[in-house]
Amino acid sequence: MPLVEISLIEGRDADTKRRLIAEVTDAVVRTTNAPAEVVTVILHDVPKSDWGSGGVPYSLKK
Amino acid sequence: MPLVEISLIEGRDADTKRRLIAEVTDAVVRTTNAPAEVVTVILHDVPKSDWGSGGVPYSLKK
Amino acid sequence: MPLVEISLIEGRDADTKRRLIAEVTDAVVRTTNAPAEVVTVILHDVPKSDWGSGGVPYSLKK
Amino acid sequence: MPLVEISLIEGRDADTKRRLIAEVTDAVVRTTNAPAEVVTVILHDVPKSDWGSGGVPYSLKK
Amino acid sequence: MPLVEISLIEGRDADTKRRLIAEVTDAVVRTTNAPAEVVTVILHDVPKSDWGSGGVPYSLKK
Amino acid sequence: MPLVEISLIEGRDADTKRRLIAEVTDAVVRTTNAPAEVVTVILHDVPKSDWGSGGVPYSLKK
Repeated sequence: MPLVEISLIEGRDADTKRRLIAEVTDAVVRTTNAPAEVVTVILHDVPKSDWGSGGVPYSLKK
Repeated sequence: MPLVEISLIEGRDADTKRRLIAEVTDAVVRTTNAPAEVVTVILHDVPKSDWGSGGVPYSLKK
Repeated sequence: MPLVEISLIEGRDADTKRRLIAEVTDAVVRTTNAPAEVVTVILHDVPKSDWGSGGVPYSLKK
Repeated sequence: MPLVEISLIEGRDADTKRRLIAEVTDAVVRTTNAPAEVVTVILHDVPKSDWGSGGVPYSLKK
Repeated sequence: MPLVEISLIEGRDADTKRRLIAEVTDAVVRTTNAPAEVVTVILHDVPKSDWGSGGVPYSLKK
Repeated sequence: MPLVEISLIEGRDADTKRRLIAEVTDAVVRTTNAPAEVVTVILHDVPKSDWGSGGVPYSLKK
């Protein structure tokens, strides 16, 4: 039942998301011995205006 | 002040969401004795491409 | 696959948590038509010092 | 490395979000002594239909 | 109703947490015009072994 | 800046957590091309009494 939530700057295509879900699931299975069927992965697309570091959103960084 | 966050595959209509918020709030009130006014429920719509189990997103399951 | 996360001020006993998980799952099943087996509920106990409203933690409210 | 996630009813403009990220980062830096560069802030826009209190979504409140 | 969740490496004392809740609430009030009473802040203490960057937990960094 | 949060039934030892953080970070780097330094992984230990599926906490499953 491991649950994985991944926040990403929006814009990855469907194939990248598919591979991300597959490879992160594999990593969880290898290290925790949970069977793949009980591993859930949820992705969250975050707009650049809504993700900041150092006090500045990525939409305003160069 | 119980806080409830519910992630769902996207596509539920507004009336289903309204009933989900109402019935989950009732369940929290009945079991915790918190008054309804302090119960918050936030729903998160997740696209099928962004939710995987067993390493595969729901957009690719049959 | 609905996923429910509930944050609560810490201190509920195991039986209250058991009923909370059961009744919230029922509410999700009734309103979304998801089968109970795919509903996950995770509870988070939060100390009173770590939950604030109006700028003040519950540990300092009367 | 403090990580801040803020859920808001959707509809704030980009400049409000920019100031929110900047001022919350400053508040975290002042109180925890973490350097600004390691503070992450992620905003989540929530539709009024998806945020309920007292069992009722904000889209149905007057 | 803004909701703020802040994850921190564990070990801050109660007074630091109190000031963090107060100052982050003020920053949200100033920038969003929400009244302080509707701002919720929840802190999450994370052990150093459970927070990694660059693939390494903070418990193993020098 | 991908951010990964993983909830697990509590009880994994420090070495398992170390490998989980390392291998999940590698999986994110391989599939998103983000450099490892900007990948954050946070683990959440959840007691069996606080994680339910099918309406029943794991503490009561056989």
